[in-house]
Amino acid sequence: MGEMRQNRITGEWVIHAPERGKRPHQYGNGQSSASQRPQRREDCPFCPGNENLLPPILMQLPEEQKDRWQIRVVPNKFPALTPEKGPERSSAAMSIRMPGYGRQEVIIEHPRHDLDPSGMSEMEVRRLVDAYRLRYRTALEDRNINMVLIFRNHGARAGTSLRHPHSQLIASHVVPAHVRARERIAQRYYDYWGRCLLCELLARECEERRRVVMETPGFTAFVPFAAEVPFEVWIVPRSHQADFASITSEERSGLARCLKEMLRRIREKLGDPDYNYIINSSVRYKEEEPQLHWWLQIRPRLVTPAGFEIGSGMRINPTLPEENAEILRGH
Amino acid sequence: MGEMRQNRITGEWVIHAPERGKRPHQYGNGQSSASQRPQRREDCPFCPGNENLLPPILMQLPEEQKDRWQIRVVPNKFPALTPEKGPERSSAAMSIRMPGYGRQEVIIEHPRHDLDPSGMSEMEVRRLVDAYRLRYRTALEDRNINMVLIFRNHGARAGTSLRHPHSQLIASHVVPAHVRARERIAQRYYDYWGRCLLCELLARECEERRRVVMETPGFTAFVPFAAEVPFEVWIVPRSHQADFASITSEERSGLARCLKEMLRRIREKLGDPDYNYIINSSVRYKEEEPQLHWWLQIRPRLVTPAGFEIGSGMRINPTLPEENAEILRGH
Repeated sequence: MGEMRQNRITGEWVIHAPERGKRPHQYGNGQSSASQRPQRREDCPFCPGNENLLPPILMQLPEEQKDRWQIRVVPNKFPALTPEKGPERSSAAMSIRMPGYGRQEVIIEHPRHDLDPSGMSEMEVRRLVDAYRLRYRTALEDRNINMVLIFRNHGARAGTSLRHPHSQLIASHVVPAHVRARERIAQRYYDYWGRCLLCELLARECEERRRVVMETPGFTAFVPFAAEVPFEVWIVPRSHQADFASITSEERSGLARCLKEMLRRIREKLGDPDYNYIINSSVRYKEEEPQLHWWLQIRPRLVTPAGFEIGSGMRINPTLPEENAEILRGH
Repeated sequence: MGEMRQNRITGEWVIHAPERGKRPHQYGNGQSSASQRPQRREDCPFCPGNENLLPPILMQLPEEQKDRWQIRVVPNKFPALTPEKGPERSSAAMSIRMPGYGRQEVIIEHPRHDLDPSGMSEMEVRRLVDAYRLRYRTALEDRNINMVLIFRNHGARAGTSLRHPHSQLIASHVVPAHVRARERIAQRYYDYWGRCLLCELLARECEERRRVVMETPGFTAFVPFAAEVPFEVWIVPRSHQADFASITSEERSGLARCLKEMLRRIREKLGDPDYNYIINSSVRYKEEEPQLHWWLQIRPRLVTPAGFEIGSGMRINPTLPEENAEILRGH
């Protein structure tokens, strides 16, 4: 199992997971275009008929039809975090470490090898959002879990090792310094102004309109004012919600429509770039906080961070968010 | 010129620089191996004889021999930061912005197109370190500059756009939230224990030895206990120094020997991977602080951060620092 170690200079934890080196890789020279993939692959563990390559299935949707599944959830075969050992810190000299406590799941999004959410039906994406919420809630049943991160890596530049369409869930005991820093900023804003920072930002974006890309029931998609990467898109629930699990049934349909459409436009207008998306939600004990607000963040991988970005933590974005939004607004 | 915008959620500044999109790119399919490059290229602006492609030269080393230069410093032709407009913030609604104030320079390391510091003589690398210090000090003569970052990008995965061996300097008015966070941690440690955090970490590494790779006069190279990426190496001055410019002449030779040797081993033992290195130094007004300590950080680009890393700020390192160090210790 992995070990977590604290970087004393930054306060951030690092997960050391030598087992991860054994992951299979289907990517050769980067091309991830769905159109060039077969509908099924003999050696793909996520394709129907290859269940012998798959760990035990944790969940399947729709639940009622065993043979006609759309979504399957399985444990990650090469986890960096596992629930084997409790999350006890130990310290010797300057070194603070702990077992890599957590859980990792793979959410297989569709039986077809060559589909991804941008090409699925709205109902299928809605089912994916349902699966996200169900697994998110299930992960938090373990009281040692404090943070659940759901994300999707699309393409080799975005860190995917398997092509079959899938999302991932990582549930962690540790709350990273990165997340705590964001919480502090939101708390300070709330204490100054008595309002949620992201509610405020969203209200201004909706007034100004220049960076708004689209709206669906309950959700607004916009390119943030200080987008760190070209064509970054935030999909934000318009009603105040700290916790992703608070999303209503109607909102899940609104999110599905917005997510599918944004991914489709990114694929078509930018030539199917690699991307990551992440659901940034509150951590345990903060689910009801008035200053925190969850959102889904899409980050196309069109630029490469270099030494400046590593040293400064700042990003250089060679584009303007207003221009990105204008391009993405076109149908 | 570029514009800086503040990400209100993280407090970090983003540099928006549409001009950067016009940079030339010599990289095709990633191969950056020095052995496959010619000694000189007709179309390379950094090669001797192509001065017509070069902006005015700011400095040359050695100074005394005009025709036998090793190092040339020129302004970056596609800067994200420029000193045209003063660094005044403006704010409207929720949007905080300012002109992208700063300076960017390219340090051409050698006339030869196919060399890099791992293959240069120790004297040549020493001259490169001298150039770093001279340009670092010169950049700080502008009182609007608060932070100077010197770094090197090696290979396409590390964000290089030109192959000819070069380092870069970015001088910025803004001090990033990332740097301030590191300062706060060092300050807190000092206030608790009355000692410099990095001095302490270094002392423990030197006692334990398991992650130490090599020592030269004045410098120790080790793989940090919580290395964020495989084969990350920190080269740290053993005497307490907050500011890179404090480095003595003898120490510059010690740093040159250590840097050259570490880059050589990384190239030979890991198959010439892409990498970045960065000099992390104190910012203006902090040059004498007892709790800050500069260091040079080498980060090979062997793994790809994905959605988990973007969302959590944590890194998954599929190797162990002790094993990295053992491999790098071999000659």
